Amino acid sequence: MSSKQAIVLLSGGLDSAVALYLAKSQGFEVHALSFDYGQRHNRELQSARAIAQKAGVTSHHVVSLQLGSWGSSSLTDAAMPVEDGDVDRTDIPATYVPARNMVFLSVAASLAEARGAQDIFIGVSQVDYSGYVDCRESFIKAMETAINQGTVMGAELNRPITIHAPFIYKTKADEIRLGVELGVDFSLTWSCYRGGDKPCGTCDSCLLRAKAFAEAGVTDTSL
Amino acid sequence: MSSKQAIVLLSGGLDSAVALYLAKSQGFEVHALSFDYGQRHNRELQSARAIAQKAGVTSHHVVSLQLGSWGSSSLTDAAMPVEDGDVDRTDIPATYVPARNMVFLSVAASLAEARGAQDIFIGVSQVDYSGYVDCRESFIKAMETAINQGTVMGAELNRPITIHAPFIYKTKADEIRLGVELGVDFSLTWSCYRGGDKPCGTCDSCLLRAKAFAEAGVTDTSL
Repeated sequence: MSSKQAIVLLSGGLDSAVALYLAKSQGFEVHALSFDYGQRHNRELQSARAIAQKAGVTSHHVVSLQLGSWGSSSLTDAAMPVEDGDVDRTDIPATYVPARNMVFLSVAASLAEARGAQDIFIGVSQVDYSGYVDCRESFIKAMETAINQGTVMGAELNRPITIHAPFIYKTKADEIRLGVELGVDFSLTWSCYRGGDKPCGTCDSCLLRAKAFAEAGVTDTSL
Repeated sequence: MSSKQAIVLLSGGLDSAVALYLAKSQGFEVHALSFDYGQRHNRELQSARAIAQKAGVTSHHVVSLQLGSWGSSSLTDAAMPVEDGDVDRTDIPATYVPARNMVFLSVAASLAEARGAQDIFIGVSQVDYSGYVDCRESFIKAMETAINQGTVMGAELNRPITIHAPFIYKTKADEIRLGVELGVDFSLTWSCYRGGDKPCGTCDSCLLRAKAFAEAGVTDTSL
């Protein structure tokens, strides 16, 4: 068994799938971490399970956490419709879930400390960040500092935890090209904000995905 | 309705009860936030509910979060015994739950953003901190920075969120004296790490509580 362990945040989308394969390619034994946070649908959790299994992770934790219980996001609040996308807009979309990545990274830090893992991977990009403030490098760095102040490993044992955000300055097209090299099975990944049998093709996330596959010159095997 | 809203982390222990009453005394409309995180017993959640009700909070959210699912703490892992306490020891006790306050503050930030609240109260003290790294001011400050980088309120709207840790340099005896002034009903609070009908009187937390009431010259009405 490898002694190099990483926690990988795995949503079921393509970014985190590529992040998982990247961690494995760097020799990490991977503990995948997914959240059931009151999303409208469980389609992306099914994808997360399939990706984790195919990649051969050491463990996969699915943590239930009802961030949706206070509403305010159309991803968790069944009363709010998911709007059609506009990839050029710059305001904060209604699909924003308050402090989502902060909560996910905090729970990842808890699991990292429980396992003695010094590495956390998150597949965020501030290039394709859709207006989400918690996908920026300034946030990731601030969170890494907080994690190292708030864990025994970081604050007492001189075994600091690193948050790897390898795609922070990459486009989704870059990620897709890397994913092809690493053998990611994109047919298992799910990006659509709506929860049908097939991607809707019109929400923000579907539009960004289609644009990225086109830019990368790769066929999207999920369609 | 007051426009000044605060999220108060409410465990059911005496520190957070005093923090709640302090927030109310400062004119905040209080949203209490408690966690069912796989504690051995629900006794402290019963206390949290009773305190919130008596204090007249605007809302009380109890969020289920299975941090206990990865074990490593005797507070969440039924296979690990709770040791008797030694108030003078300086190592990290087995009751440490990895990154607990970081996860709690992250979820508090999510709720704060959903409600438009700019204030979060947490009743930690680094004087009586029992070796917990996530009860230190350096962590609280780092977390406040991360919250303001990772929320729209902090990063985009110039409405930064403040984490109030009013007891960070107070002893538990100081908190008890303040609680008496503010009208806290200590009979509703619960500190014992073990989950019986009555506090065990021998765990770390019971010993610290008894010592603090003695120092404050106050009778503990919970006994």
